[in-house]
Amino acid sequence: MAKTRAPDALISTDGRCRAVIENVRPEVDNGRYPVQRAVGEPVTVEADVFVDGHDRLTSLLLYRREADREWSEVPMVPLGNDRWRATFQATEVGRYRYTVMAWVNHFRSWCHDLARRPDTDPDMKMVFLAGAELIAQTAANTTGRDVERLTAIARTLSGAITVAEKRRVALEEETAKLMDRHAKRRFATRYEKELVLAVDRERARFSTWYEFFPRSCSGDGHGSFLDCEARLRYVAAMGFDVVYLPPIHPIGQSFRKGSNNTLTANPGDVGSPWAIGAKEGGHKAVHPELGTLEDFRWFVVKAGEHGLEVALDIAFQCSPDHPYVREHPEWFRRRADGSVQYAENPPKKYQDIYPFDFEIESWQELWHELKNVVEFWIEQGVRIFRVDNPHTKPFAFWEWLIGEIKRAHPDVLFLSEAFTRPKVMHRLSKLGFTYSYTYFTWRNTKRELTDYFTELTRLEGRDYFRPHVWPNTPDILNEYLQFGGRPAFMVRLVLAATLAANYGIYGPAFELAEGRPREPGSEEYLDSEKYQLRQWDLDRPDSLRDFIARVNRIRRENPALQYDWNLHFHAVDNDKLICYSKASEDRNDIILVVVNLDPHHRQSGWVEVPLDALDIHGGQSYQMHDLLTDARFLWNGPRNYIELDPLEAPAHIFRLRRRVRSEHDFDYFM
Amino acid sequence: MAKTRAPDALISTDGRCRAVIENVRPEVDNGRYPVQRAVGEPVTVEADVFVDGHDRLTSLLLYRREADREWSEVPMVPLGNDRWRATFQATEVGRYRYTVMAWVNHFRSWCHDLARRPDTDPDMKMVFLAGAELIAQTAANTTGRDVERLTAIARTLSGAITVAEKRRVALEEETAKLMDRHAKRRFATRYEKELVLAVDRERARFSTWYEFFPRSCSGDGHGSFLDCEARLRYVAAMGFDVVYLPPIHPIGQSFRKGSNNTLTANPGDVGSPWAIGAKEGGHKAVHPELGTLEDFRWFVVKAGEHGLEVALDIAFQCSPDHPYVREHPEWFRRRADGSVQYAENPPKKYQDIYPFDFEIESWQELWHELKNVVEFWIEQGVRIFRVDNPHTKPFAFWEWLIGEIKRAHPDVLFLSEAFTRPKVMHRLSKLGFTYSYTYFTWRNTKRELTDYFTELTRLEGRDYFRPHVWPNTPDILNEYLQFGGRPAFMVRLVLAATLAANYGIYGPAFELAEGRPREPGSEEYLDSEKYQLRQWDLDRPDSLRDFIARVNRIRRENPALQYDWNLHFHAVDNDKLICYSKASEDRNDIILVVVNLDPHHRQSGWVEVPLDALDIHGGQSYQMHDLLTDARFLWNGPRNYIELDPLEAPAHIFRLRRRVRSEHDFDYFM
Repeated sequence: MAKTRAPDALISTDGRCRAVIENVRPEVDNGRYPVQRAVGEPVTVEADVFVDGHDRLTSLLLYRREADREWSEVPMVPLGNDRWRATFQATEVGRYRYTVMAWVNHFRSWCHDLARRPDTDPDMKMVFLAGAELIAQTAANTTGRDVERLTAIARTLSGAITVAEKRRVALEEETAKLMDRHAKRRFATRYEKELVLAVDRERARFSTWYEFFPRSCSGDGHGSFLDCEARLRYVAAMGFDVVYLPPIHPIGQSFRKGSNNTLTANPGDVGSPWAIGAKEGGHKAVHPELGTLEDFRWFVVKAGEHGLEVALDIAFQCSPDHPYVREHPEWFRRRADGSVQYAENPPKKYQDIYPFDFEIESWQELWHELKNVVEFWIEQGVRIFRVDNPHTKPFAFWEWLIGEIKRAHPDVLFLSEAFTRPKVMHRLSKLGFTYSYTYFTWRNTKRELTDYFTELTRLEGRDYFRPHVWPNTPDILNEYLQFGGRPAFMVRLVLAATLAANYGIYGPAFELAEGRPREPGSEEYLDSEKYQLRQWDLDRPDSLRDFIARVNRIRRENPALQYDWNLHFHAVDNDKLICYSKASEDRNDIILVVVNLDPHHRQSGWVEVPLDALDIHGGQSYQMHDLLTDARFLWNGPRNYIELDPLEAPAHIFRLRRRVRSEHDFDYFM
Repeated sequence: MAKTRAPDALISTDGRCRAVIENVRPEVDNGRYPVQRAVGEPVTVEADVFVDGHDRLTSLLLYRREADREWSEVPMVPLGNDRWRATFQATEVGRYRYTVMAWVNHFRSWCHDLARRPDTDPDMKMVFLAGAELIAQTAANTTGRDVERLTAIARTLSGAITVAEKRRVALEEETAKLMDRHAKRRFATRYEKELVLAVDRERARFSTWYEFFPRSCSGDGHGSFLDCEARLRYVAAMGFDVVYLPPIHPIGQSFRKGSNNTLTANPGDVGSPWAIGAKEGGHKAVHPELGTLEDFRWFVVKAGEHGLEVALDIAFQCSPDHPYVREHPEWFRRRADGSVQYAENPPKKYQDIYPFDFEIESWQELWHELKNVVEFWIEQGVRIFRVDNPHTKPFAFWEWLIGEIKRAHPDVLFLSEAFTRPKVMHRLSKLGFTYSYTYFTWRNTKRELTDYFTELTRLEGRDYFRPHVWPNTPDILNEYLQFGGRPAFMVRLVLAATLAANYGIYGPAFELAEGRPREPGSEEYLDSEKYQLRQWDLDRPDSLRDFIARVNRIRRENPALQYDWNLHFHAVDNDKLICYSKASEDRNDIILVVVNLDPHHRQSGWVEVPLDALDIHGGQSYQMHDLLTDARFLWNGPRNYIELDPLEAPAHIFRLRRRVRSEHDFDYFM
């Protein structure tokens, strides 16, 4: 016999396992990373499953919580072209495993053959004896009351009744199911991988964030946590469920930036919260002017009373005054003169920021200390972290850190603030971030929005990349907002809130339509809160607070808007109008949105409503209920006229109400 | 410290390896199967390679023969969007490995920063000292004459010359290359897989097959190998390089089929060669009427003298008279009455064929015996096997068999005759078959041909699925040939020979345009050679032998037609005309084919020639030389008129001849 090498491995497994399983989806990078879902989201698994020859197969989807040993089984259904599918629901937070299993189903193969045989086949008697033998074998390996039923069927097939009668008994689906139930799964094939599913709590799927600077919350002077109670009430009233705070730690004095990012601060300049660390402490301390650690815990509790969860900023970098600089000089890179190398991206210099050097000998110590920072804030009651610039720290570090944290605290969520290259953003999402910032901020035309959200909701990246969209941030005031005025803010709010299940705004700059850049061509805010306190007049009559509250209420009341993948774009014959719909899985809730992307001019056009997809048949008329204005329109047929004036209302958020009664009833619409 | 599980593995590797390598292509099923190429075909490898932050990377493609230990390295080139590419040539038959490696290139990162710094940067001195330090470190770890050069550069950068001069020295590409050459590859990342490349001899890439029944080669009565000499000369004259023979083994008597597949044979009926095995022997014997084993070896040698390689049929099935049935009754399935189960696909019955049962206890013994059959014919000088119905035997069996054979005989080629479902055909190709039959036979319209060949030459399956296209086989006489007459055969010949680098015909049925089906609606030949001898008049004046010879000569003389992936379709404003081109890699050979798919009517239209892709610029005129008719046409611009009469010539095979001289020369065209 010839010497064997690789093939040895093959022949040493049982060569009689004939079923083949390939191309299982979802599967992220060959199973290297988990698939991500939130509790209650369905997990639909597909695989190519086939066998040589003409035999029939049984194929099962297996899944279990990682902690459990027992698998649950879901029969897979063939879709044609050897593709099979099954779905399960992950009901608990944490990690699951899933895989696929298949075997040749000899009884169903026999049935399939039998069905194609004419009654006149001279071998009919032997065919039925073969079937009876298969059933008898199964009965012999079975216990319980099914034994009798199987034995009875076997007896019928080998008995003296007519071919037609035997055929009827043999081909009853009940018989095949009975045989399936007691199948020996002889020579079953298991897919070579167990794939991992990471399940987050529901807020991973649906969340509405509001970012603000607590230090700007006092009527005058530096605000503290204790000044924020009214602000929390204000934010809650707008319907948000997460308040996200920029870093709350002591701010360095050395090289502190002045207002509008000037190189030298004046006395009284408050500095950037991202220049973390001073003599009062570092990443585990609270900036004294914001209050004490106790005040922060009070803030977390108070927010909770308003239905708001607190998200903290994680910015792993230090001001020159950070205690780490003294205690761990080896964690930083040195310049030729022995000074610490500050952050630079030539020609830009950030003298107030020291980055960590992740290529040091004691990297493990550094990693553990940074994890300790996260654990510290978890102890203070925080369960959501927005990570600043994760793309400037090693990928392996994040995978380790998030893995460690989530193993102990599976309910913790991480938002990746990575405005960088597509593959870097995707890698960060794969390795564990719950959500990611997106390019939404720079997608303003119909073509850009359609392409981008089609990519986000259709391509395979959706299995791990959960978009979190922001019309503005303290770092980014897009030119669309700079030039479009108040209507532009309304447009971007409606787009963010209805295109994506997770969105956020940075306020009060947003609701007050703050659109002034630091200088022409810049995306930085003039008088940015990053460097100075701002007093905002929250009660200005032109504030968008009520509009935002209405949009957020629509999101809360309509499950269709709480998912990402149900997004479908529809044609409009005007490139300034964009139209899309979302339907809940049970299709009881169907939302159709039309937005005028032109913040300056009235635009009109004909929208193509996909009637079939929306279950409207046979020339039925249907009511479009605009949830923004409460206006109701009776529509008929697929083409309908839309006219939107940005100065009145730049968008419709329609709920489609199907006609369910006849003219004999008072109410025409459900 | 928290207990670690999966992340432990991570932190136990060096967390300072910051480069990331993803999405390497080609990679078949996550590296489960080898990528297939022929000797001399380039292997172009791409990968996503990136790092956190702003650092520059070095990325290398590594490859080696599996038997060697040393890797060869090819620097990868960035294509944008973090995609990198490199190419190598596999020069020898056998298995190779390849993978990707990358690391942060601190010197190039430093150069990149330096290039963006203004001369007025106050830190310039320290920047140059940092660069000098990097160079000095490298010098300290280097031996040989480069040490001096490095040291000199380091000295320059820390010296007293101008910033401009230091910048010039630092940014010379020569300096970076010197640093690259001596890079310590500190914290290098290796892609987690070594991918396998299986390299076949050139005939895997380019071959021209002729199938015939040797038993029909005698003037009258049963032909033998010794009768085939004239036929070999005839086949060679048509320009083929492989002769493929249906099974040459003893044919069973029990349940032998009569002519036209009738259930009972008359005395003198020769039976189907696929009903293998009789008292004279089985798969390792020669049918006595064809001659002896020695005669077969003579035939192989004789074929070789005519430049023809012999391909044998491997059909793993038995007639009821096969010695295996007596010697290994356990290899077959039994019916209720104890008789052996013959092949059935209800309502069809093949009483003359016993399939093997691959689910038996002694499956390993069966596998080894079947491998032994292949080895036997290898010993007789055969190096190509056409495998009959591989999709009715287990996939694992083929992977093992082909793996074993090719390890001992890397030059052996296997053609898969799998007319079955797409995923089954792909699986067979992945697990080792050199070529596969295709759906070409049923692709007759422009749309069908364009879609199918685009799929074959553009999708990822091309990395393992090598199409072998056949206009006819003894099993398949497509309706296009039944109804299209002689022009239809010419059309299908040109398509097969120019769309695919590997094609074959079953003759003399093909060149004599045999188009009569057994009955209307059947794809079986009337009086099929599968069941009876046929005398063919090879000298009929309407034979296509000269036309085929011309087409095959064009294939031999034009490298463009010897590859698959270089195929591009071009627009014609008539759906009966199809147009495509192929260019050799050096672009010295450019072939443009136009075929009239309508075998009945003259068709005309305007062809869109992609001038840019064919390197014709600036309104240059160009000559189209029809290699079929030797006619020459002067074309200008992208749109050109084509008219093809199926009764004259249903196709043009143009060689594009660019104008390289001016009107001052005698010859206008190269």
